[in-house]
Amino acid sequence: MNTIETILSHRSIRSYKSDPVPENTLEEILTAAIRGSTTGNMQLYSIIVTKDEEMKKKILPLHFNQQIVMQAPITLTFCADFNRFDLWCKYRGVEPGYDNFHSFTWAVIDAIIAVQNACIAAEAHGLGICYLGTTTYTADKMIDVFNLPKGVVPITAITLGYPDIIPPLTDRLPLEAVVHNEVYKDYSKEKIDELFYEKENLPESKQLLEENQMDSLPRIFVEKRYTKKDNVHFSKVFFEVVKNQGFFNHEE
Amino acid sequence: MNTIETILSHRSIRSYKSDPVPENTLEEILTAAIRGSTTGNMQLYSIIVTKDEEMKKKILPLHFNQQIVMQAPITLTFCADFNRFDLWCKYRGVEPGYDNFHSFTWAVIDAIIAVQNACIAAEAHGLGICYLGTTTYTADKMIDVFNLPKGVVPITAITLGYPDIIPPLTDRLPLEAVVHNEVYKDYSKEKIDELFYEKENLPESKQLLEENQMDSLPRIFVEKRYTKKDNVHFSKVFFEVVKNQGFFNHEE
Repeated sequence: MNTIETILSHRSIRSYKSDPVPENTLEEILTAAIRGSTTGNMQLYSIIVTKDEEMKKKILPLHFNQQIVMQAPITLTFCADFNRFDLWCKYRGVEPGYDNFHSFTWAVIDAIIAVQNACIAAEAHGLGICYLGTTTYTADKMIDVFNLPKGVVPITAITLGYPDIIPPLTDRLPLEAVVHNEVYKDYSKEKIDELFYEKENLPESKQLLEENQMDSLPRIFVEKRYTKKDNVHFSKVFFEVVKNQGFFNHEE
Repeated sequence: MNTIETILSHRSIRSYKSDPVPENTLEEILTAAIRGSTTGNMQLYSIIVTKDEEMKKKILPLHFNQQIVMQAPITLTFCADFNRFDLWCKYRGVEPGYDNFHSFTWAVIDAIIAVQNACIAAEAHGLGICYLGTTTYTADKMIDVFNLPKGVVPITAITLGYPDIIPPLTDRLPLEAVVHNEVYKDYSKEKIDELFYEKENLPESKQLLEENQMDSLPRIFVEKRYTKKDNVHFSKVFFEVVKNQGFFNHEE
């Protein structure tokens, strides 16, 4: 498979074989991660490798007991990290000024560029990955489990291993739904109807509505998967983490 | 070049040939972007394609007059976007609950996964890219120029074109600097000295110190490139954008 084919073949893998990932393969994946672009070549991220069974058990509840954490041989947690850069400054007698929201944003971007490079490198090796969006939900607890100092915030994680079950590709909106030429083109009701037509008429969407006894896909998102109550709660938790880790020292 | 080689060969391209990017190549790059993982398959991003000379002139000052914006045939601006998803909810009679910081974080992650897929796909096609970190600095003005509605925040941009000058690979810290096994290992002064030794002793680093008449690389970052004063200013600007675009409606 060439690079484009690898990218187009991506699906989240939620069932893994027990085969371990060879050490040199992992090293190549991590090396791919750090070759990605990074703000001012500051490399504002850290990667925590979880292989140990005891550590897996500790992070399992932080990923809402998703069993892939136990099943996958490896979980990689990507953190926004200014701690290392700040220490470099301090040890060279310079006072860093990165305890703010904008610098945090750079570190988040750096971390995600790194993780996506790792994903594609892993898939090129025949491995499967699954993003664990749960990472930001429980970032406060991740800090304890991984012993993260100030300046470090967990942003996302991926499971890594050889796929056991390879599911079909998931649907995407047509390209024109997300691409805007020159300026943003806002969406009329007719346009939304058109762009979401295929998604709303997939057999799996119909089945989902039936299972959930609901009249539309958005209702499943809003009332079940990602409710306002949860979103507000976890926004407060995550923003507290950002502040506590020292990235919001600029407001009076 | 296979996928791993493509990833490992990445360098930021700051000088482009005038050759245009074929339409089907751009489409393949954009298709690669949307195949990336996305939170709950919500695709919380939009991509603005800039090709028009007049639009390039408008965004040029927003990228601090970096001439690559004029020189590259295409700039792609990636935005965190909940507007489209929210409209889908509303048109289906459901009130979305994504006007909060956590939902914003999902959209940022989605946008960066998409952009990095686009970068690797572009590089696989022999194109070069350069991230424009300036995007978050002037997100408030981007909103005007691109006519972005509430729920949409510019996160990053890339220039895209055939490389004219291909620079050498930039340095990276050794892998062990950013990888932690099982738990985070904080850095002693000795460890920082060791991990940054190679970077601090590169001929280009020595040259940089001489040009800037400074005693250490961190001083160049802190006192010249990314000063606290600027960081605080742009943090306030960017956080205002996040609030104004409707992603912070959860604090009293």
